[in-house]
Amino acid sequence: MIKRDGLLLVISGPSGAGKGTICKALLEDDRDIKLSVSATTRSPREGEVDGQHYHFVSKDKFKEMIENEEFLEHAQIYDNCYGTPKAKVIENLKNGVDVVLEIEMQGAMQIKKAYPEGIFIFTLPPSLKELKNRIVGRGTETAEEIEKRFSSAFDEINKIKDYDYFVFNNEISNSVKEIKSIITSEKNKVSRYKDNILDKFREEL
Amino acid sequence: MIKRDGLLLVISGPSGAGKGTICKALLEDDRDIKLSVSATTRSPREGEVDGQHYHFVSKDKFKEMIENEEFLEHAQIYDNCYGTPKAKVIENLKNGVDVVLEIEMQGAMQIKKAYPEGIFIFTLPPSLKELKNRIVGRGTETAEEIEKRFSSAFDEINKIKDYDYFVFNNEISNSVKEIKSIITSEKNKVSRYKDNILDKFREEL
Repeated sequence: MIKRDGLLLVISGPSGAGKGTICKALLEDDRDIKLSVSATTRSPREGEVDGQHYHFVSKDKFKEMIENEEFLEHAQIYDNCYGTPKAKVIENLKNGVDVVLEIEMQGAMQIKKAYPEGIFIFTLPPSLKELKNRIVGRGTETAEEIEKRFSSAFDEINKIKDYDYFVFNNEISNSVKEIKSIITSEKNKVSRYKDNILDKFREEL
Repeated sequence: MIKRDGLLLVISGPSGAGKGTICKALLEDDRDIKLSVSATTRSPREGEVDGQHYHFVSKDKFKEMIENEEFLEHAQIYDNCYGTPKAKVIENLKNGVDVVLEIEMQGAMQIKKAYPEGIFIFTLPPSLKELKNRIVGRGTETAEEIEKRFSSAFDEINKIKDYDYFVFNNEISNSVKEIKSIITSEKNKVSRYKDNILDKFREEL
């Protein structure tokens, strides 16, 4: 095994495109990838567990974490704040452990600035109609919120240009297969190893 | 299916690293990929079939093809000339068909200049010792040729920096799996689609 840093997979995309579902299925399929758990000031949805789905924190606590520079990124989405605690992610990457982040699009772009070696994956709904159905079906947003989100859907999809890869959220097993191929190919990228490959052969001379 | 050009996979690497074996196994595994057959002035090795392994041509014919600009690249390796006929490759790519090229390293770099969208894969032997064993085992080279090739092996491996990906030729099924992952991930690369992804969604608005 030739030494390299872990991969940082950033899975983002429009609300309702299914980044959460894809991320969950990926983690179930590949137990070696660690999930970075975000901090948020929003209320837990039904079934969400603190420390597993999110670190649910108060607005004051969140503010304190910003001041202490504990975030790799943070953003306000509508009325809620979300952030990625920095220390654990960096520690894992340095130890060669792959980390996945499921994150809103504002946050993804902050991560890209802070860590351009990250792999930025954009989840796409099969269609705009399908996207709307999913947001409505989730039943967690008000009618006004749904309209707000849908109206910005195409603008959000336009942001795909800032990403490395896209994955359609069509059939979940296929989406996971594609992300796993992306992981494999990134592990075979020459640029991720600096001189470590040459060093392996140099030792023989 | 969103329209894109076919992928041009360029499989190269040091002599004896096993690019031929890997390429053959890949083509057997994935019948949708087309092999580009090179032209060469060298004599057929035992079992090599004209038009399948190479187009075996005379030195005069090769010269004529150069003059008519029929090559995507051509190079002289030791005493023999090798070249990649251009027309068929470009036709396939434009039709969305993926093409694989197995090629010496000089030729690979000419292709990179002519077609930078190509995917450049460097095959690595498990070790330098293993590389020498393979060249000797092939039994087609004289002792002098073997020494010449082995002495340049490390210099050749140094050229890995010009490539996108590497694949160790360790276990063939694993090498093929890695190349197939590279193909899948490249098909999920945003940059390969220009505005075609956005156009798909724009139609719905």
